[in-house]
Amino acid sequence: MALIVQKYGGTSMGSPERIKNVARRVARFQAQGHQVVVVVSAMSGETNRLIALAREIQADPDPRELDVVISTGEQVAIGLLCMALKDAGLKARSYTGGQVRILTDDAFNKARILSIDEANIRADLDSGHVVVVAGFQGVDEAGNITTLGRGGSDTTGVALAAALKADECQIYTDVDGVYTTDPRIVPEARKLDTVTFEEMLEMASLGSKVLQIRSVEFAGKYKVKLRVLSSFQDEGEGTLITVEEGKKMEQPIISGIAFNRDEAKLTVLGVPDRPGVAYQVLGPIADANIDVDMIIQNVGHDGSTDFSFTVNRSEFEKAKAVLESVRQHIGAREIIGDNRICKVSAVGVGMRSHPGVASQMFRALAEEGINIQMISTSEIKISVVLDEKYLELAVRVLHKSFDLDK
Amino acid sequence: MALIVQKYGGTSMGSPERIKNVARRVARFQAQGHQVVVVVSAMSGETNRLIALAREIQADPDPRELDVVISTGEQVAIGLLCMALKDAGLKARSYTGGQVRILTDDAFNKARILSIDEANIRADLDSGHVVVVAGFQGVDEAGNITTLGRGGSDTTGVALAAALKADECQIYTDVDGVYTTDPRIVPEARKLDTVTFEEMLEMASLGSKVLQIRSVEFAGKYKVKLRVLSSFQDEGEGTLITVEEGKKMEQPIISGIAFNRDEAKLTVLGVPDRPGVAYQVLGPIADANIDVDMIIQNVGHDGSTDFSFTVNRSEFEKAKAVLESVRQHIGAREIIGDNRICKVSAVGVGMRSHPGVASQMFRALAEEGINIQMISTSEIKISVVLDEKYLELAVRVLHKSFDLDK
Repeated sequence: MALIVQKYGGTSMGSPERIKNVARRVARFQAQGHQVVVVVSAMSGETNRLIALAREIQADPDPRELDVVISTGEQVAIGLLCMALKDAGLKARSYTGGQVRILTDDAFNKARILSIDEANIRADLDSGHVVVVAGFQGVDEAGNITTLGRGGSDTTGVALAAALKADECQIYTDVDGVYTTDPRIVPEARKLDTVTFEEMLEMASLGSKVLQIRSVEFAGKYKVKLRVLSSFQDEGEGTLITVEEGKKMEQPIISGIAFNRDEAKLTVLGVPDRPGVAYQVLGPIADANIDVDMIIQNVGHDGSTDFSFTVNRSEFEKAKAVLESVRQHIGAREIIGDNRICKVSAVGVGMRSHPGVASQMFRALAEEGINIQMISTSEIKISVVLDEKYLELAVRVLHKSFDLDK
Repeated sequence: MALIVQKYGGTSMGSPERIKNVARRVARFQAQGHQVVVVVSAMSGETNRLIALAREIQADPDPRELDVVISTGEQVAIGLLCMALKDAGLKARSYTGGQVRILTDDAFNKARILSIDEANIRADLDSGHVVVVAGFQGVDEAGNITTLGRGGSDTTGVALAAALKADECQIYTDVDGVYTTDPRIVPEARKLDTVTFEEMLEMASLGSKVLQIRSVEFAGKYKVKLRVLSSFQDEGEGTLITVEEGKKMEQPIISGIAFNRDEAKLTVLGVPDRPGVAYQVLGPIADANIDVDMIIQNVGHDGSTDFSFTVNRSEFEKAKAVLESVRQHIGAREIIGDNRICKVSAVGVGMRSHPGVASQMFRALAEEGINIQMISTSEIKISVVLDEKYLELAVRVLHKSFDLDK
């Protein structure tokens, strides 16, 4: 007998029929003798509907009250899933975040989990109940409702698995695992049986939408065995996210090719090359609440340097305006930008022990005449910024070059 | 400075624009120096939408989980109204039933309020906040979410007013007060400035849909000054529901004519006239969860009697089947019924001191050739059951006969 936490996303809960399917799957696990805790997201579209309603009232909705409103999506979902479970003859009990007591800080809309009181859940499991918990939400010390930010239901699932010392945390989604790259671009893409937390973290931050990055961090930190599975297939082992690097003799160098279309780059030309210039450029960007992704500063010459960074494409114009407003103050010559770019990355813990990965990647792109605009590396990934028109071509070339289809 | 509890129903909260209107009205009261607690219902249609969703999952939804689901309607409403209040520059804070701590028993779907912890609300009011509380919901001792049944938001409003010793509880609705009868039937119907709790109770139980009957009982019991007002008009004093009978020299005999179309009558003919027969007839009806309204048993003759009662029209067939199944056991000759009837009632505390009211009522109906099928009286009302085709005519005749248009 194992204790399993299963998390179902909005698509898996998207209709009464799909909710009944989730109930059938949970029933099968319980029939096998497992204890099951289910974490659910709001039915697909519901959170967006509620946010739109809030914005009709207040252009920039009050954070505390927004959490009161949007947390109802998951609350409806837990009630409906419990009805489906009871209709299937199971014992079930729903919990809002506040009822479990998932204690968070008071950062509305992006709260962090501080602690989980698992006593009631454990008692329910021991008396044969399936426990259904609302994802994405908690309460702060004062009893205010908080939410964890987009994708926060994954984090709820992992945090509950950690608190309950569950044997496995299963994330059910609309894909059947983590792939070497997006099969819509490379039909030969293969599902990975295992991937390390580090690789998963890089893939998540590089655009793979399978798992929310915070939940992967959390699972890595608390050593939660995390598995990604499809909620639309009854068979399959999904992809296991492991702490250990694989025990295989021939560790593949690269585990996958990630990419992100939603990028834009900005370059500040001719900045005086002196200490503090990075802060002068990026301070105002941070003050404007714009997230920066890649940051590149090359060696300067003639006492000045060029400074580039990428932002989410939706914030390109805003970031450009911020830079223009400080251009004179920082003594820069010119601000240029391009919002028709993409980022393509090769990820793999194997590259630690294989020094030639970067050159192999650059050669493969050069052979197709693809110009690299920016390069950024970490211990287990290499990212390049390209003209967005090359995205699919670059992904296919790299997927093949690193033998990911084999 | 007064402490006012205002309750807004689903129609008043029916759209973002209407929610903003509620915020403007609340702001005006606060600007006059009053402390305001607002109780809101779910946006119109929302509770029905959620119930329909639940029924798609489970034909007879689990009561505990149904409350988890349907309580979200009011939770969304409090968040949205607080956003509108903050957008208008006010300080505001929302509370779910559980956050206030409106403690109820654990009768899901029809819980009763046991106590209200008003400490946090009072602190918020004292620091200049408008407090917005979700109607219709509470929590039981174990922390389960409960709801109070249809129209329960009125009860929440009155209970909060009692707990806070508010100066007035204002119920905002889509009519501007309590009328002598429905103006859609009698255009000359007048709005009453005051009506007593007893009269309001009778009117509510006789078909007037202005106030939920439990909230009127509650207000009477705790001496809460209750006022019905329109949320769509800025002027007007509405109708005050008072404990005292009016101090006017000329108390009108009748305050209003109530009516109900949703009635059906059943008669058990030729029942042996012996002790316990009423229980034998009505016991099986109660066991089938059918609510009975009027009950009439006339003096018997030849050792047998006839026994009649009315039920909601939607339960007519069910009630008839129940009676048929016990007919032989109770020794009745025949079961007859009619679901094309209506009930018309004259209500007024003045009839206590005016003995001729009943005969005036029967004469007025007789003069129009309207046959009375059943009669039932209490200290302050007289109800008659008529063929439903006479409903409007009877209401108009009685309204005029008792000078309610003057």
